[in-house]
Amino acid sequence: MGGDHGPAEVVKGALLAARRLDVEVLLVGREEEVRAEIEEIPGNVHLVDARDIIDMADKIDAVKAKPEASINVGMQLVKDGDADAFVTAGNTAAALAAALLRLGRIPGIARPGLGMVVATSEKGPTMILDVGANADSRPAHLVQYAHMGAAVMELSHGIRSPRIGLVSIGEEDSKGNQLIIEVNSALRASGLNFVGNIEAGQIPHHVADVAVMDGFTGNIFIKTVEGVAELFFDELKRAVQKTPWNLIAGMLLRPELRNAQRRLDYAEYGGAQLLGVDGVVFISHGRSDARAILGGIRAAGEAVQSGVLAQMHEIAERVPARGLIDASAANGNGDANGDDQDSSE
Amino acid sequence: MGGDHGPAEVVKGALLAARRLDVEVLLVGREEEVRAEIEEIPGNVHLVDARDIIDMADKIDAVKAKPEASINVGMQLVKDGDADAFVTAGNTAAALAAALLRLGRIPGIARPGLGMVVATSEKGPTMILDVGANADSRPAHLVQYAHMGAAVMELSHGIRSPRIGLVSIGEEDSKGNQLIIEVNSALRASGLNFVGNIEAGQIPHHVADVAVMDGFTGNIFIKTVEGVAELFFDELKRAVQKTPWNLIAGMLLRPELRNAQRRLDYAEYGGAQLLGVDGVVFISHGRSDARAILGGIRAAGEAVQSGVLAQMHEIAERVPARGLIDASAANGNGDANGDDQDSSE
Repeated sequence: MGGDHGPAEVVKGALLAARRLDVEVLLVGREEEVRAEIEEIPGNVHLVDARDIIDMADKIDAVKAKPEASINVGMQLVKDGDADAFVTAGNTAAALAAALLRLGRIPGIARPGLGMVVATSEKGPTMILDVGANADSRPAHLVQYAHMGAAVMELSHGIRSPRIGLVSIGEEDSKGNQLIIEVNSALRASGLNFVGNIEAGQIPHHVADVAVMDGFTGNIFIKTVEGVAELFFDELKRAVQKTPWNLIAGMLLRPELRNAQRRLDYAEYGGAQLLGVDGVVFISHGRSDARAILGGIRAAGEAVQSGVLAQMHEIAERVPARGLIDASAANGNGDANGDDQDSSE
Repeated sequence: MGGDHGPAEVVKGALLAARRLDVEVLLVGREEEVRAEIEEIPGNVHLVDARDIIDMADKIDAVKAKPEASINVGMQLVKDGDADAFVTAGNTAAALAAALLRLGRIPGIARPGLGMVVATSEKGPTMILDVGANADSRPAHLVQYAHMGAAVMELSHGIRSPRIGLVSIGEEDSKGNQLIIEVNSALRASGLNFVGNIEAGQIPHHVADVAVMDGFTGNIFIKTVEGVAELFFDELKRAVQKTPWNLIAGMLLRPELRNAQRRLDYAEYGGAQLLGVDGVVFISHGRSDARAILGGIRAAGEAVQSGVLAQMHEIAERVPARGLIDASAANGNGDANGDDQDSSE
């Protein structure tokens, strides 16, 4: 209910999924409003009533204040085993809070991260994480992101020993802020296929299968890509409209450039997977259209079938936060997230 | 001497400046190599011999190890008053170190910042700082950046009470990491024309005259813009080469799109001004061509004439680092930069 387009586009996307994919779709929201968007309800589509709505303007505390919000009801379905995965185009902060409240963190995972798989280059997909779940990161968080991202790219995308890149301001191990320098040395010893630091500008050239960064940087990165792409296509439109000849020129080039535009418009992707919570959750862009919602449902289905959740539990046991956090804390990297240590076990 | 193109492009740009601008140009480097690039030395061009070279691969300690490096000799010319400004296309880290070593910080300024003026939008220029002088920032650093950036945009670009934006992951004051949240409240009380948090993707739309961010984020931002721009124009090239008709289409649109390309290719700008050191220093992109060097020399000349340096001293007295740092330290934002407090007074 909380997406920019209300239920309309989400329902449209869900119906596409019900038709094209081998899935059962549970539509969570105000039943009458959802029903109003559907002419005839297919056999593999079911309505689950949820009276409350948390919109983009709502603060996180609305998650507790509105237990009947679709975002809470949807998470609870997963918690109770009545759904295998939950896909939402709602308020990201609220989705995070609801996931932590209803599903909880996987014991041993310090902070859930949002992993978005994009295909900025035609060479293949890259997972960028964290794209904004956690604004203040500690080394342990990023190390766990690397492990979780590797697992997803291997299981859901069939990439064997994925290349892990750490996004920094230079390729040398010594380049970066204190956080990145600590994470770099931890990843050198992680047993992962760590290709070292990569520069943000290289991500579109597919230099890594997983690009690890803190959530603040990740959000800056995707917003910058969106902003620059928007600028270009505005410029292109302006140029094309200048003369009739330019218009024809634009028509000739359009199909080619449309691909680039698609690849750079992150709203067109299925959304980001919330890694580290005890359930399969995808958060799609608020302005997701039906095709993006279909993509999110497809990705969620693939994630469920790939057994990624079990893998996350395995990672939590193999590289638990506490050990990592103690190590990094000893290195003097302290921020206000001490709670991790208690809550992560 | 240290630029990607060696002395060739730098000399070419310097000669352009000597011809077009009312300046005296001192060319600092290995005299015979510099002379080899010039057919006839104009009256307002002078050669200053410097035997050592610090290249892009050199580590910072080369700055102390090679006192005769062009970057050291150039900074010393400014220190001794034999030059009004120094422009370099050399190793950024080395340039920073040399500036701190030879010119030093302005007392009261905690950390120098690199301010780059770009025109991502046709609406006008925006200064982005810090673009990478300081990877680990504290609130005091960013608050001083805001003041210094405002002064430059007012003095050198004639913008009255420049709009200061703080780059974060959401526009609400509460959005961001701990650093940004503290800086936001400090800027609210700063007396500057603070427009609040802005998103990185909005910078190209000229929502602020000064976009303040920490050096790690700033570097990620410009590298991302460069990477996406590159990707787009590669795509365009690919599209144009597909058919003869596309080629014609490309030729029709080229002049229009060239503007967008120029605006987004940060190597084409005059470079970034090092704010907070006791002298006028511009650091141009390593791959700067003659036109970029000309731009750097022009910008440096304007900076000198605008009296920006005196303004920086005034800011250092009006908003000294110590008070700010103590305040922020009290807020619990501690990183390993305690040295600021002693060295900044």
